[in-house]
Amino acid sequence: MNKFTPMREFDYWYSEYMNDNVKLSFEMDEIIHVEKSDFQKITIFRNKDFGNIMILDSYLQVTEKDEFIYHDMIVHPAMATNPDIKDVLIIGGGDGGTARELSRYPSIEKIHMVEIDEAVVNACKKYMPTMATVLTKEPRLALTIGDGIDFVKKTETSCYDLIIVDSTDPTGPGGSLFTMGFYENCYRILREKGILVNQHEGGFYEEDAVEMVKAHEKIKKIFPIAKVYGFNAPSYSSGYWYFGFASKVLDPIDDFQEQKWNEFKLETKYYNSEIHKGAFALPNYVKNRLKSV
Amino acid sequence: MNKFTPMREFDYWYSEYMNDNVKLSFEMDEIIHVEKSDFQKITIFRNKDFGNIMILDSYLQVTEKDEFIYHDMIVHPAMATNPDIKDVLIIGGGDGGTARELSRYPSIEKIHMVEIDEAVVNACKKYMPTMATVLTKEPRLALTIGDGIDFVKKTETSCYDLIIVDSTDPTGPGGSLFTMGFYENCYRILREKGILVNQHEGGFYEEDAVEMVKAHEKIKKIFPIAKVYGFNAPSYSSGYWYFGFASKVLDPIDDFQEQKWNEFKLETKYYNSEIHKGAFALPNYVKNRLKSV
Repeated sequence: MNKFTPMREFDYWYSEYMNDNVKLSFEMDEIIHVEKSDFQKITIFRNKDFGNIMILDSYLQVTEKDEFIYHDMIVHPAMATNPDIKDVLIIGGGDGGTARELSRYPSIEKIHMVEIDEAVVNACKKYMPTMATVLTKEPRLALTIGDGIDFVKKTETSCYDLIIVDSTDPTGPGGSLFTMGFYENCYRILREKGILVNQHEGGFYEEDAVEMVKAHEKIKKIFPIAKVYGFNAPSYSSGYWYFGFASKVLDPIDDFQEQKWNEFKLETKYYNSEIHKGAFALPNYVKNRLKSV
Repeated sequence: MNKFTPMREFDYWYSEYMNDNVKLSFEMDEIIHVEKSDFQKITIFRNKDFGNIMILDSYLQVTEKDEFIYHDMIVHPAMATNPDIKDVLIIGGGDGGTARELSRYPSIEKIHMVEIDEAVVNACKKYMPTMATVLTKEPRLALTIGDGIDFVKKTETSCYDLIIVDSTDPTGPGGSLFTMGFYENCYRILREKGILVNQHEGGFYEEDAVEMVKAHEKIKKIFPIAKVYGFNAPSYSSGYWYFGFASKVLDPIDDFQEQKWNEFKLETKYYNSEIHKGAFALPNYVKNRLKSV
């Protein structure tokens, strides 16, 4: 080692910009996978604290350390509002985390997953097995590689109890999953007690809040019940992220089946009955913004 | 401009490390104030999004953009549990935000604030007036520059309804505010319906969670009621931060005076009745960690 060799071999950081003036950065211990698929650039690197982290284009999607929060919250609130859900459609969700949480319910009969990018599925099977193994092993799961927009358009009957849109942000390839046409088709193919859960972005940074309001605006026009709920997402913008809960008849608080859900006896690291109720409590600044819709 | 002059005059960032491998960074638009006081290094800089930000030693304390969340949550849950609070003691709180929120209650008779570092108070009066102006203008406020540990030790009677410990982290100069002796004195000088609210750190990163458990452990030995509640703090570690709510007889949920609090007709940007209840809902991984105490 000559005197010009630094002590550390490299010092690479991945930074996620909240906006031009604020960023959250993760040290890249090792770059594991870089691939340009037909839809996006897929990067997976290892961070000592967060484990493997997947970036699609320039947006952090999922980390091994905190994915349990995201996946608890995208699945369990709907399942606890209608524990009789049998048929589920996942749009996106290529990492497998959402399918994994659903697969823990013996009462669910069919999980249909439509993911546009097979390269994401394959990369996750290889580098994020705690999430993606379910995609190979679960007999109730049918995986279609294809366009979710097309899929819902071409589905003719109301055959789902729950649709989960586990997509990228509206600015990425998932953009058309945030349109009226898509939401209308979701409504149409949901059964009478149907629930739609989808990305609702963040409420704190202006750029995120604008998207939140836009999504809420559209869904409110279509679904009689349209709520927003949040959770602490340490690897996401502002540390707090929101999902939309839209439905034909069921209210996530009034119809919350606390006892029935507890009878599933699922061990969860984030979700519980108090979190269910607390998640729908919105800060005034978010409430007021959504009220303007 | 010769060809070696960069387009941007400077590109300075302040980074807060969650641990060795993760950091949250704020661009420094202008460094406004740097001072070495008798207790700590005080730095205030301006960030285009967050406004003025104060760093004590190497820890971010407060930003103009998101302080409303922190100060709503350090004050209103206690006030809504006992709306008859008359005498309040603040330990720390040099930026003035806690005093400002308390000063909005006409029913409060006396706010005694004991801050160790006069330099923090003076810097905040100058550079964070939306928080610190109350320190000059509020007639019910008595400000003592001194050691909070000593102050509670030397206070002989039970003369407070609420004590708010608005301190730095246990690793900073506020370390002795996280000791049994201090908490015991707080208990002693609180009236029968007394409440103690204090820093409880974060639950997500190991370094923070260890401190959370330590604080909870001590408080639980002294106060019959010891709860923990959280809130989205975008400029803090993991985006979610916790306070402790400890009291002699009042439970923040069972004794929550929702209607009475609403009668104060305070406009708040974060806090509301649902947030009050939701804040005490803890994720399982935090609950389990605290249960081990």
